[in-house]
Amino acid sequence: MNLARRALAEFAGTAALVAVVVGSGIMATDLSRDAGVQLLANSLATAASLAVLILILGPASGAHFNPVVSVAAWVLTRREAAPAMRGREVAAYIPAQVAGAVAGGVLANAMFALPAVQISAHDRSAPHLLLGEVVATAGLIVVVFALARQDRAALAPVTVGGYIGAAYWFTSSTSFANPAVTLGRAFTDTFAGIAPASVPAFIAAQLAGATLGGLLLVALYPNSPQPIAEPVPGSAYQP
Amino acid sequence: MNLARRALAEFAGTAALVAVVVGSGIMATDLSRDAGVQLLANSLATAASLAVLILILGPASGAHFNPVVSVAAWVLTRREAAPAMRGREVAAYIPAQVAGAVAGGVLANAMFALPAVQISAHDRSAPHLLLGEVVATAGLIVVVFALARQDRAALAPVTVGGYIGAAYWFTSSTSFANPAVTLGRAFTDTFAGIAPASVPAFIAAQLAGATLGGLLLVALYPNSPQPIAEPVPGSAYQP
Amino acid sequence: MNLARRALAEFAGTAALVAVVVGSGIMATDLSRDAGVQLLANSLATAASLAVLILILGPASGAHFNPVVSVAAWVLTRREAAPAMRGREVAAYIPAQVAGAVAGGVLANAMFALPAVQISAHDRSAPHLLLGEVVATAGLIVVVFALARQDRAALAPVTVGGYIGAAYWFTSSTSFANPAVTLGRAFTDTFAGIAPASVPAFIAAQLAGATLGGLLLVALYPNSPQPIAEPVPGSAYQP
Amino acid sequence: MNLARRALAEFAGTAALVAVVVGSGIMATDLSRDAGVQLLANSLATAASLAVLILILGPASGAHFNPVVSVAAWVLTRREAAPAMRGREVAAYIPAQVAGAVAGGVLANAMFALPAVQISAHDRSAPHLLLGEVVATAGLIVVVFALARQDRAALAPVTVGGYIGAAYWFTSSTSFANPAVTLGRAFTDTFAGIAPASVPAFIAAQLAGATLGGLLLVALYPNSPQPIAEPVPGSAYQP
Repeated sequence: MNLARRALAEFAGTAALVAVVVGSGIMATDLSRDAGVQLLANSLATAASLAVLILILGPASGAHFNPVVSVAAWVLTRREAAPAMRGREVAAYIPAQVAGAVAGGVLANAMFALPAVQISAHDRSAPHLLLGEVVATAGLIVVVFALARQDRAALAPVTVGGYIGAAYWFTSSTSFANPAVTLGRAFTDTFAGIAPASVPAFIAAQLAGATLGGLLLVALYPNSPQPIAEPVPGSAYQP
Repeated sequence: MNLARRALAEFAGTAALVAVVVGSGIMATDLSRDAGVQLLANSLATAASLAVLILILGPASGAHFNPVVSVAAWVLTRREAAPAMRGREVAAYIPAQVAGAVAGGVLANAMFALPAVQISAHDRSAPHLLLGEVVATAGLIVVVFALARQDRAALAPVTVGGYIGAAYWFTSSTSFANPAVTLGRAFTDTFAGIAPASVPAFIAAQLAGATLGGLLLVALYPNSPQPIAEPVPGSAYQP
Repeated sequence: MNLARRALAEFAGTAALVAVVVGSGIMATDLSRDAGVQLLANSLATAASLAVLILILGPASGAHFNPVVSVAAWVLTRREAAPAMRGREVAAYIPAQVAGAVAGGVLANAMFALPAVQISAHDRSAPHLLLGEVVATAGLIVVVFALARQDRAALAPVTVGGYIGAAYWFTSSTSFANPAVTLGRAFTDTFAGIAPASVPAFIAAQLAGATLGGLLLVALYPNSPQPIAEPVPGSAYQP
Repeated sequence: MNLARRALAEFAGTAALVAVVVGSGIMATDLSRDAGVQLLANSLATAASLAVLILILGPASGAHFNPVVSVAAWVLTRREAAPAMRGREVAAYIPAQVAGAVAGGVLANAMFALPAVQISAHDRSAPHLLLGEVVATAGLIVVVFALARQDRAALAPVTVGGYIGAAYWFTSSTSFANPAVTLGRAFTDTFAGIAPASVPAFIAAQLAGATLGGLLLVALYPNSPQPIAEPVPGSAYQP
């Protein structure tokens, strides 16, 4: 599949993901005053949508929707034969992911009759939240690439969805674990927002977590990695 | 399978779907005063039921339960060899879907000891709700037909169920995304109802969303489509 | 597998099912005062457990746990070659199911420090609840035997679990749909109980629903039925 | 795979499991005052995470994360040819599981800005809670080893996750069912904690339950057991 189409899939998937995270957060806070019920709705909607998005866009682009996943795929597979991730693909994916994330936040604002472009005032700067992001991102990298190294990337949709749904609850930061999504969530002043001043430390924590996750992955599964794109038996849609 | 039996499956499936949407809405509002808990119950019951219905009726009729899905199947496959969707099938499916939707609303009312036939007074006319319907229906078309074009329609039950369950939350309209179901929900004056005056704009938004979704689908997966009916290996119940 | 072992599986499975329904109901009412949250917990625990029980006991006995399923299996397969359901199997299954259901109710009471044997005072005699039971049981029969006639009984665990979880919400009766379980739930005076005086009408409604469901099944899938026991490829545990 | 790597997988998996149980409990009590909503969040996060952990670590170590599972695997397979569980493997797994459980509790405390090492004051000594633990652990052993004896260990991730998620609700003890996790939960004075004085009776009840479960398993599935490690077709990661 050509690179423009793959970048379109990354744009559309990341936009949809942020629209789900932000939109379900707005709906939840509109409907309930119990913050536990709000996060239940937000996490369940995100988990289900992430599984659906990876399923339908995996054959198009690998369904990364996340710069740390794209970079990790490149680091872990660049010495391999095709279909390894290539540097020029990373360079096309990341801008598509960031633009998609911002577009998704704007779309969610508009669907709920809020000003389309907003800047979040939600401070998320406490140090223990950064530890939460380290743990969340390390876990994500282990989950995604352990499946790849087991040749079971076809299970990624439900596994990654389930992981992120749970990580909303067991990490103190509610598990952003994604630099593009973090940027996109700065553009909504609602439940899921993050103040721009809190963004750089979140992204730094995510990069640290991805590195730790990669080290744990290699300790557990040292063999040469498999490509992470989902195999689609009998289909013309291999990326 | 003959066309009468396929239409029966569309009637029964759409009736069951609307009975679930309306019935679980009544149960939820009877039991809880937290609107977030109400929508959690309503969305989870709908997602699970939709997956079950597509699974058990897919081999009978393709399990569309939705005029925009039937029309999209016809548009996307009419130039193909069998088992493409045919115009006369669309003409049989749509009345069955609409009749089923109304019957399902009436059945739900009766199960909860309410007057069997009611007209909803629930106004849903704000413009941002229409944007929600556009997004919801576009996403549904991409989900259904991306799976078809990947030759993975067997995953449609859980994928479509998960998508609709999430779309209750991330779209401002709670994702009707179905003209027949929209009509059926006009016949109950409960949680899930919609006032008749709000119906035409909802259906127009759904048609616009389906068109947008079709365009996005073709941009992502341009190849000639596959039939969307679920394959059932070793079974006599190919539609 | 010999008949005693199959009856043990039906006893254990029905006991576990009722222990889950009753036990999770007690836990839910102990913890929350929102009846919507209570039914969410009750329905989710039941759906997950039912899927697990069918999965682990299907190869032993077919995992009926329900007299109407056993009778329907006999009616629908008795003219078939093995492995059809036989009359003497039905005669062994039903007492095991009823004894298991009562044992499960007693176990749940004991786990929560309540008197082990109780009689419910929970009246469930309103006519619309009986319509709910008709719908719930008809749906259950269609779900179970549609999968069987499609040769997809391997999907029964998650499908039946999902169906019952949803039917807690969309039927007014919360979907007992099972004469043995109905009897078992008469032995606990808690959230999930049913007063003995309400039991006969519930069972009559379930029988009516099973008949209606069988008729709808045959209209949709007229071909000769397949055995409903779960196939376990490569295993010695075919029933 | 060498034994050190397998022990690392048991350490990491048990640490993650306890971090999820404790962390999601803290998040839930921070957000909601409805104890039903708290346990819903806690049980859903645990169920999803357990499924993910078994999926990604099963090929590395069998994903026991639980001394009673390791001992039961040894008892049930030690007379078999490879890949049976061996005594020296049990001796390596149990310390890794216990150390992981404690580390997971400490990590959860730290992620939520609490003192890293705490001792729980949560008394759980009532006799009916011990009956709950007997039932919970018996069920776990039947679930895990019934799948193994049916050659369907590949279904263990979602089945065990679903079982534990439900057992939070239908057992009075919220289903610890794991001596290592019980010890780890003594090191946090939060929602999921257990006072050290309550630990020995819990572990005794778990051992009794495992024995009962093993007896029920053999009555239902008497044939020689299969190895419980997950098969990974086409992979180099057989344990």
